[in-house]
Amino acid sequence: MYQLVLVRHGESEWNKFNLFTGWTDVGLSEKGVQEAEEAGKLLKAANFKFDIAYTSYLKRAIKTLYHILDEMELLWIPVHKTWQLNERHYGALQGLSKSDTAEKYGDEQVLLWRRSYDVLPPALTKEDDRYPRHDAKYNELTDAELPLTESLKETVVRVEDYWEREIKPQIIQGKQVIIAAHGNSLRALIKYLERLSKDQIVDVNIPTGTPLVYTLDEQFKPIEKYYLGRQGKIEQKIETVANPDTIME
Amino acid sequence: MYQLVLVRHGESEWNKFNLFTGWTDVGLSEKGVQEAEEAGKLLKAANFKFDIAYTSYLKRAIKTLYHILDEMELLWIPVHKTWQLNERHYGALQGLSKSDTAEKYGDEQVLLWRRSYDVLPPALTKEDDRYPRHDAKYNELTDAELPLTESLKETVVRVEDYWEREIKPQIIQGKQVIIAAHGNSLRALIKYLERLSKDQIVDVNIPTGTPLVYTLDEQFKPIEKYYLGRQGKIEQKIETVANPDTIME
Repeated sequence: MYQLVLVRHGESEWNKFNLFTGWTDVGLSEKGVQEAEEAGKLLKAANFKFDIAYTSYLKRAIKTLYHILDEMELLWIPVHKTWQLNERHYGALQGLSKSDTAEKYGDEQVLLWRRSYDVLPPALTKEDDRYPRHDAKYNELTDAELPLTESLKETVVRVEDYWEREIKPQIIQGKQVIIAAHGNSLRALIKYLERLSKDQIVDVNIPTGTPLVYTLDEQFKPIEKYYLGRQGKIEQKIETVANPDTIME
Repeated sequence: MYQLVLVRHGESEWNKFNLFTGWTDVGLSEKGVQEAEEAGKLLKAANFKFDIAYTSYLKRAIKTLYHILDEMELLWIPVHKTWQLNERHYGALQGLSKSDTAEKYGDEQVLLWRRSYDVLPPALTKEDDRYPRHDAKYNELTDAELPLTESLKETVVRVEDYWEREIKPQIIQGKQVIIAAHGNSLRALIKYLERLSKDQIVDVNIPTGTPLVYTLDEQFKPIEKYYLGRQGKIEQKIETVANPDTIME
């Protein structure tokens, strides 16, 4: 049997302003830092230990992991960062507010972009400053790997690939793993682990800064799944992220 | 030609109390965090870029690196942590105050332990809680690798080994490298790079939180060396660390 812990990053600087974020590299708000510290305290109190950690190239996830490991006295463990665990790329919506977008395209279309499995938001052009080729951290990626926009479907492909190549082999070797990532990259992983359909996964809402603990059997099938923390608080957080008017990814 | 940047961690929680620290894993003081942030701002303003970073298993160095990379918007780069860049192990002196130690052994002996090249401080026993075998982060080390005490000479051996095996090959491949470490592990590296004698290296004092920039030729011989920052401030910091009554390692 294996164990795996997933954590969605705490509140970002843009979550506060209701902006589409995607691959925009914004930091954590004060509240986001507190959420991360709280997650670290919970994991420490429950005696969790990790041998290796994974996160994205985006600092809201990296910082969440840092504060968790700091609380756990585990800053020394190896941390692997990868673009493949990045948030879903929101294309030309990145940087726009939900209200601006709703005004331009209508509420229904906005909800469709955010909660459908395979509908692509408007794509960037390659000249757009938001195209990841203009950011040095993606220098080693091929053009085919660099998104101009993504639906959850494309996010699933890159997350599955990284899971199979990098993370799963470590778990098989007996390593205790924690992954700090984003609403949609974690959704992608959960879809894969729980063998969910594309209709099922769009209804899964992951609370921020809350350790999600899986017990997996030898075939990596989930046997048990629970959130660490006070039940009332977790439910409140799930409600918050489930409400399309509150948390933007 | 190659470039290399070294940074000694900022003030730790124990520096304030004048305690022998060594491998004791204490955090940064508020001032230490500020020193790290300042170093990051200086490096950013001077347009430094790094592809890869190295630090020790000790959080005062890991945190210094984190704050530097955060200021530089480089949190996403790979960070390699190793026990081989740890501070020199101070044996049975770890956790003792300078004044207690001086009272017990005399000022001269204390200065000898701190500023000689190959005089070993009193060794730990293997039953001592401070013996690194009792700390999970050193689980993978052999008994021969785990110190009961170290002089600078032993520190030089492990730092050189890591430099040759891990860091130098990356630099040869064209990677821009930053190393955040400790007074004595950086001394060890400087001795090696500058081909200093054991008498010369004990007189080298490295200011805390101040980027030390080397330009090296194809044979890794230093061509240029300078500290980044305001000259008066750097000199003041060097004086502080050179004074054996102020900073303990």
